[in-house]
Amino acid sequence: MKHPKIPLAQTVVQLCKAKNIQHIVLSPGSRNAPLTIGFTHDSFFKCYSIVDERCAAFFALGIAQQIKHPVAVVCTSGSALLNYYPAVSEAFYSNIPLVVLSADRPKYLVGIGDGQTIQQEGVYNSHIQYQANLKQDLNPDNENAFAEELPIIKSIENKIEKYLGLQQSVQHYNETEINQALNTAITTQGPVHVNIPFNEPLYDRVDQLSVNPTNVMPVVNLDANQDYNAFAEIWNGSKQKLVLVGVLPPNSVEQHFLDVLAEDESVLVLTETTSNLHHDKFCPSIDKLIGALSDNELQALQPDILLTFGGLIVSKKIKKFLRTHKPIHHWHVAENGANDTFFVLNKVFKQSINSFFKHFIPLTKAVKSNYNPYWSNQMTIRREKHERYMDLISFSDFKAFDYILNGLPENIQLQVSNSSTIRYAQLFDLNPTLEVFCNRGTSGIDGSTSTAIGAALANPKPTVFITGDLSFFYDSNALWNNYIPNNFRIIVINNEGGGIFRILPGHKNTDNFDYFFETKHHLTAKQLCDMYGLVYKKAENKTDLQTALKTFYTPSNQPKLLEVFTPSRDNDAILLDYFKYVK
Amino acid sequence: MKHPKIPLAQTVVQLCKAKNIQHIVLSPGSRNAPLTIGFTHDSFFKCYSIVDERCAAFFALGIAQQIKHPVAVVCTSGSALLNYYPAVSEAFYSNIPLVVLSADRPKYLVGIGDGQTIQQEGVYNSHIQYQANLKQDLNPDNENAFAEELPIIKSIENKIEKYLGLQQSVQHYNETEINQALNTAITTQGPVHVNIPFNEPLYDRVDQLSVNPTNVMPVVNLDANQDYNAFAEIWNGSKQKLVLVGVLPPNSVEQHFLDVLAEDESVLVLTETTSNLHHDKFCPSIDKLIGALSDNELQALQPDILLTFGGLIVSKKIKKFLRTHKPIHHWHVAENGANDTFFVLNKVFKQSINSFFKHFIPLTKAVKSNYNPYWSNQMTIRREKHERYMDLISFSDFKAFDYILNGLPENIQLQVSNSSTIRYAQLFDLNPTLEVFCNRGTSGIDGSTSTAIGAALANPKPTVFITGDLSFFYDSNALWNNYIPNNFRIIVINNEGGGIFRILPGHKNTDNFDYFFETKHHLTAKQLCDMYGLVYKKAENKTDLQTALKTFYTPSNQPKLLEVFTPSRDNDAILLDYFKYVK
Repeated sequence: MKHPKIPLAQTVVQLCKAKNIQHIVLSPGSRNAPLTIGFTHDSFFKCYSIVDERCAAFFALGIAQQIKHPVAVVCTSGSALLNYYPAVSEAFYSNIPLVVLSADRPKYLVGIGDGQTIQQEGVYNSHIQYQANLKQDLNPDNENAFAEELPIIKSIENKIEKYLGLQQSVQHYNETEINQALNTAITTQGPVHVNIPFNEPLYDRVDQLSVNPTNVMPVVNLDANQDYNAFAEIWNGSKQKLVLVGVLPPNSVEQHFLDVLAEDESVLVLTETTSNLHHDKFCPSIDKLIGALSDNELQALQPDILLTFGGLIVSKKIKKFLRTHKPIHHWHVAENGANDTFFVLNKVFKQSINSFFKHFIPLTKAVKSNYNPYWSNQMTIRREKHERYMDLISFSDFKAFDYILNGLPENIQLQVSNSSTIRYAQLFDLNPTLEVFCNRGTSGIDGSTSTAIGAALANPKPTVFITGDLSFFYDSNALWNNYIPNNFRIIVINNEGGGIFRILPGHKNTDNFDYFFETKHHLTAKQLCDMYGLVYKKAENKTDLQTALKTFYTPSNQPKLLEVFTPSRDNDAILLDYFKYVK
Repeated sequence: MKHPKIPLAQTVVQLCKAKNIQHIVLSPGSRNAPLTIGFTHDSFFKCYSIVDERCAAFFALGIAQQIKHPVAVVCTSGSALLNYYPAVSEAFYSNIPLVVLSADRPKYLVGIGDGQTIQQEGVYNSHIQYQANLKQDLNPDNENAFAEELPIIKSIENKIEKYLGLQQSVQHYNETEINQALNTAITTQGPVHVNIPFNEPLYDRVDQLSVNPTNVMPVVNLDANQDYNAFAEIWNGSKQKLVLVGVLPPNSVEQHFLDVLAEDESVLVLTETTSNLHHDKFCPSIDKLIGALSDNELQALQPDILLTFGGLIVSKKIKKFLRTHKPIHHWHVAENGANDTFFVLNKVFKQSINSFFKHFIPLTKAVKSNYNPYWSNQMTIRREKHERYMDLISFSDFKAFDYILNGLPENIQLQVSNSSTIRYAQLFDLNPTLEVFCNRGTSGIDGSTSTAIGAALANPKPTVFITGDLSFFYDSNALWNNYIPNNFRIIVINNEGGGIFRILPGHKNTDNFDYFFETKHHLTAKQLCDMYGLVYKKAENKTDLQTALKTFYTPSNQPKLLEVFTPSRDNDAILLDYFKYVK
């Protein structure tokens, strides 16, 4: 087997292997050649080549989202790693372990006008869990390459011995830092950055490793000694408890805990589409329930205790409600910190959710209350109204989502883009066999397609990705990817612009609005499908769509894309009227 | 005329107007609605709408590169402004005044799990000339919106008076910071970031401005009291002086100064293609002159004094030469700092180039020397060999550049992408009527097309853009742009991958190399042209290319793209043999 000659490159590659970091997404470059050589010559690694670093990082994010273990992206020096930043920030806020391995010039060549060089250290600022700034290996053949240490070496007699000593301390420093960075990615499930300076020559290869770095195991610190009794007492004394669940991977919570919550009349569980949590007695479409409530109803819904877990919350309505009708207590359960989303957070249980419930549930008792029965009944009424409304409305975004979401195969992965798409999806009670994912960390439109492709690759189930036209065209380079599974399906809802802006209180149907807010266009996905080898289908009305969906999920030798054109001038009224109708 | 209701938005828009910042590139969003409303309702501004922020920022960079005055980009909150970062870093290293106006949530909504929210303050880290973190206007209707000041207000009796006082101090702070940021962009010719938090409601409009911000004029500090005599004495005492010129806008230096340098036998002037500096006696293709010199020749070329001006240097060969054969003195002339590119920089003249020459040239005298005559003669010999080589070689990248560069119309703007493209262009003596630009700040492939389109829009001359396939596909969203002039011409040299890696000492013609370094592909630009409405032409051999070039520059109702396919397996040998041949 071939290895890069540079010890630092060997160290990075060996420690990734030791920590079972298997998926490596490489972008082309020369400065990162030692890493590319190292990763691609060892069959342990699954290496991918993606040119546009923005897409590469979101693709890696999609893999890491699925496997919940670090995935590495590797790039050359210069502005390359800045193109990773949108995905890094998404990883930061979505708790996804993304490892950035950026090759750099040695320090003496930074800031002196060399090409493809920026100040790479610390670029991700406050959106990174750990930042390791490695030191270049000393190179006795190149005086400049260890300029910092040179005065020391020059002043002593036994140069070689001193050189070896210095190189040993560089090696020790680098090993410690790489261990720390990779372990942080594992324990925090967040992004980390390892900046790796290499001296030339970059392409030399050797048959034997010259270093054997030590793998330091990660240590997880959780609150082991939490006392739950006082909290259970408050819990048992309340007749109105709201449990709100944000982004969670499928199967995050043991079913018997959920059953206990479901049987307690004083507990109302609201789950977001992205929570992947299902129970007959939970309310899965929050906005359907709380859209257009009267002041009296909102007051009746106000909980004493709010218990939250999972990631960020999509529903704006629930945020507005809980900020206005604040609970007395807000407790959050998470291994990695919590957000004070409603300005009343007063307890964080630094635990896995199952560990929390294991301790807490036995201390609780069901409390007689009208809270759950009343709101469950409301939910039933609104579900019926929802169905009636769907029969009433004409072809539109909303109607298209009705057909699409109800026509999805079972047991698949559903990837959803921002921002109208996830908001529409939240209004439906989705099939519980679906696994649902959306980039809600920063809620950006910048990398949803790339993320979905990475996730499709890493999840054995077939993947359907639903997206809007702006997010789809934004991430058009996502399709410049050799790893799109043939059973991957894209549905683009093309309403010729940012339809979501029509719902906001702008000044729609003026030229200014259409141009600068909605950003109207007449693009279609057809040419991109031709370019990148996807089967293209389109639907412009109800019949088209129903016909297209009949065969869309059948096996094929290429991935497929279905573009659904909807009437942008009708979509917003149909959505806004919905909330009045289901009330 | 309509204005946004929010005073802070009015302040930003009014100060941009006062400072004659006319070009505003807007990306869609809701949080930035107050700015979008403000800019688009005032006909003073030329507003552009571009969805992909990475492209938007490079497009703005292209405009600013041409007009040498700040151009603003405006985006919503969240990861949007991270997509600006590649262009911001390019602006930083290329001294281009790019103003980032990022809308943000008010501070109390940052870091608490709200959607589309990141830590926007300070994201550009060390790649920005000024960072203004504005304060949201106080809103007496929303207690949370001035949470920081609330305790003060609550504790006093006359709340309204106190509120007004606080709002006044916020307004004063914001005006000062905006002035400082925009003035810094003007004086440093670099990027600045203004982060602008807005409270809801965002879409309200008013007929009258409620604030009248003060425009503070920028102040430029240059070395007024430089003493040149000591330097002139060193200059006059040397027989070997090398002048090396990097990136410069056209017409940067007065001709009579250049004439003095040209007539001095002890002075050799090497100009890069991007220097836009021309004189019969200068050497415009550095690599042609110094490629494959013997050790003796390199020693003969070693200067006593190196005088540099302009931006970053493309030629790797000259960097390697001057780092090995160091001059005794390296002086750099620049208004904004200097790079110690050769590790011997010992004087920076903080001056415009013309101001420096105005003081310095009268103190100098021509010195008898063989330095210029010898190397000018070498240049002549190599020019002849270059022509002979061009007749010898088969169709390839190099031959295609020969046809293309020699077939360019006169008096046009030539935009060139990284990285093979600019390196090939540097081997030719270009027509002096061309204005040549290339993103050499970070030398990235990430935004060359967008930059060229912005520059084409802002330069009255027709623009031809030459790019490689990887950079072209990387920035494919550049074409999602309503402002491409009909006389804009793109030439894509498609060698099906990163041909430049074949020149480096990798292990080419192995699967591993082709896949991970060269990143081979079989894409063409045809579908993108269909999608975005460009005329598409292609050439696969010498005859095709010659025929295509005959009509490529004739006027048309659409921009045109010419894709030239070259044989990737021959290109590298033909380039490497060139340096041996011209020796």
